Amino acid sequence: MLNRQVVLKSHPNGVPLPEDFELVEATSAEPGEGQMLVRNLFFSLEAAIRGWLDGKANYFEPIPLGGAIRGPSVARVITSRLDGFEAGDLIFGLHHWEDYSLSDANTILLSKLSPEEDIPLSYYCGGLGGSGHTAFVGLHEIGNIQAGETVLISAAAGATGSMATQIAKLRGCKVVGVVGGENKADLITQKLGADAAINYKTCGDLTAAINEACPEGVDVYFDNVGGKTLDASLQCMNTFGRVIGCGMIGDYNDQDNPTPVFNMWKLVEKELTLKGFLLYTYMDKVPAASAQLHEWVRSGEIHILENITEGLPNAGWAYSEMMRGATIGKNLVAMDLQEGEHL
Amino acid sequence: MLNRQVVLKSHPNGVPLPEDFELVEATSAEPGEGQMLVRNLFFSLEAAIRGWLDGKANYFEPIPLGGAIRGPSVARVITSRLDGFEAGDLIFGLHHWEDYSLSDANTILLSKLSPEEDIPLSYYCGGLGGSGHTAFVGLHEIGNIQAGETVLISAAAGATGSMATQIAKLRGCKVVGVVGGENKADLITQKLGADAAINYKTCGDLTAAINEACPEGVDVYFDNVGGKTLDASLQCMNTFGRVIGCGMIGDYNDQDNPTPVFNMWKLVEKELTLKGFLLYTYMDKVPAASAQLHEWVRSGEIHILENITEGLPNAGWAYSEMMRGATIGKNLVAMDLQEGEHL
Repeated sequence: MLNRQVVLKSHPNGVPLPEDFELVEATSAEPGEGQMLVRNLFFSLEAAIRGWLDGKANYFEPIPLGGAIRGPSVARVITSRLDGFEAGDLIFGLHHWEDYSLSDANTILLSKLSPEEDIPLSYYCGGLGGSGHTAFVGLHEIGNIQAGETVLISAAAGATGSMATQIAKLRGCKVVGVVGGENKADLITQKLGADAAINYKTCGDLTAAINEACPEGVDVYFDNVGGKTLDASLQCMNTFGRVIGCGMIGDYNDQDNPTPVFNMWKLVEKELTLKGFLLYTYMDKVPAASAQLHEWVRSGEIHILENITEGLPNAGWAYSEMMRGATIGKNLVAMDLQEGEHL
Repeated sequence: MLNRQVVLKSHPNGVPLPEDFELVEATSAEPGEGQMLVRNLFFSLEAAIRGWLDGKANYFEPIPLGGAIRGPSVARVITSRLDGFEAGDLIFGLHHWEDYSLSDANTILLSKLSPEEDIPLSYYCGGLGGSGHTAFVGLHEIGNIQAGETVLISAAAGATGSMATQIAKLRGCKVVGVVGGENKADLITQKLGADAAINYKTCGDLTAAINEACPEGVDVYFDNVGGKTLDASLQCMNTFGRVIGCGMIGDYNDQDNPTPVFNMWKLVEKELTLKGFLLYTYMDKVPAASAQLHEWVRSGEIHILENITEGLPNAGWAYSEMMRGATIGKNLVAMDLQEGEHL
């Protein structure tokens, strides 16, 4: 079968551009013993992918030039030679930006999905998938948030940040979000329930802005961006404050020139805990998180923010838009069908 | 009674100089209700004092120009109007660099000492006092060291570092110390049992030197210095590694220009925990620490390194020597008696 793929055409210089990606045509492989062939339905666009585009190893192998972009997807099993999976199953896993992928027991993040009928399938790529689970696990397991505490969240209109904002509010915290745009500031205060929003692009001195929004100090900082926002937040933390190290997207576009952090002394002075985490270390916490998030989504207490781009050929453009900070909520690519394809 | 004091003559510019301090003569105060008059015997010279010399508040009030230098001491009670203390008692507490201090229930770190007869009293200012307790609590409560792990320790020939080096070895860890001098490198490997020493002044690229000494990676980094050593260590940490934030002496001499840290991304990538602490938060852990440290000192398994300067008039010089990194082990000032004084 024809298998369209989006491959890496050039290593991005800073923010990825649409022309760093290329659509090519290949042929889908036959699943061997222990493998399954899956039809990708939604791709989850994630900041972590940026780290794989520079041709240098980080916690995953780099994507070579000409290689298909690696990314998590929701997919339907076409044929299975893997125990426990059969044709028609819906799965989640780290696949590639292509029509058809091979998946096996070693596929990172592989799980079988049992989507509820009343929930859009795309939600399992975002708010009810990795983004929601990351927000939930980070706030509870890493940040140990308590009702009445003040929680600062960066990239608060993003996929993970928008979930963290709402979860922390539901847990009885005061929530202040840092965002890059007035539309995002309005969104998180008016729709997501944040107590205040700081637009880092227009607020002037960020430390002063955080102190103004949080005169009682910050107990927990959910860090999605690192760099200058992390540095400013360190100056505003209360004694025994916790920093949840979830992502450092601020530096993903230029990993050779990370933003310096000057206020590490606060670690000792304020007896802070900075703890980084990756969701796949906490998979045992996901079922409870998922159950609670489903409940909140059904009750309307949590809004899932999605930005869905239609069609595999547009995946590179969609990723570029996300990585330049132009989007709100979870970024997804909804796969278009090939000509004559019926699922 | 005549009360000699060492006061702050000028705010140091970088490393404190002897002439930033001045010996003056005052009169000792009479203890009021709830107070006691104590005769200082040993002063513990500590890096934290540097933070109080710039005229800016940090976690303690700054010392004003002309004000007596604040510092912890071992002292003997002369007269007491405080319940639970009587003349002749030996105490530890945060006093001032002077012959006689007033102490009360609010004195920071106040505790009654019951020194063992076979142990030098000075040890209770260092290895069997705050430095030893800090090393012990840091390694166990913050770093959670386990036998077989690799522990990196900065300022490993210093008061806290020399204790941490020996404790971690006794707990079955591999220990690599970072020091500033060949004499210190020889000391920690030949006398304290460190498996390797890195002289940061001559090793060239510090990250490469740590990787060479710890090809298996660093599980726990006991950070006494912050700055460039912290930055380099972040690049060498194993997944789930812990950084014990004990001190950041590297920046104490120039707090307005902290050393930037560039590798905070490792927090997420390696799922690290960076946790700062101050001993006084963990006073409930001190009795057990003290008992174990006494046992090790008696058995000869731990060596207490001391650098004792005689006489209050030399306190400023001694502090300057310590803060320029010229000394080894715990720095103390042994108080000289006033003319005609008998204790």
